[in-house]
Amino acid sequence: METTLKVEGMTCGHCKSAVEGALKEVDGVNDVNVDLDTGNVKVSHADSANKVEMREAVEEQGYDVV
Amino acid sequence: METTLKVEGMTCGHCKSAVEGALKEVDGVNDVNVDLDTGNVKVSHADSANKVEMREAVEEQGYDVV
Repeated sequence: METTLKVEGMTCGHCKSAVEGALKEVDGVNDVNVDLDTGNVKVSHADSANKVEMREAVEEQGYDVV
Repeated sequence: METTLKVEGMTCGHCKSAVEGALKEVDGVNDVNVDLDTGNVKVSHADSANKVEMREAVEEQGYDVV
């Protein structure tokens, strides 16, 4: 299963790493792919993964999910 | 003694932390203050501190000293 989050405020490789790392800590998330130019974050995950947790993980790093 | 480096490419708080952390590892450096908006990095240091090492520490993090 794949979910694409639209994330605002990521500007550099450190931001990308922060978001990827946080999302990979969410239960059921298998892989994360950040496109810095577009802000699109593709998350591959089990059906059981909770999208609210994904959003919160990103927001805790200081970025907005729109 | 204080030296101001002009650094290009820092875009976010992670960049700031990376530059500050690297400079604080340089022998003789006591304090570092990054202004993200201007790119000015103020380094407080002993007279013995080596400015080439400061420049290299920043460049190793992927930023240009101009």
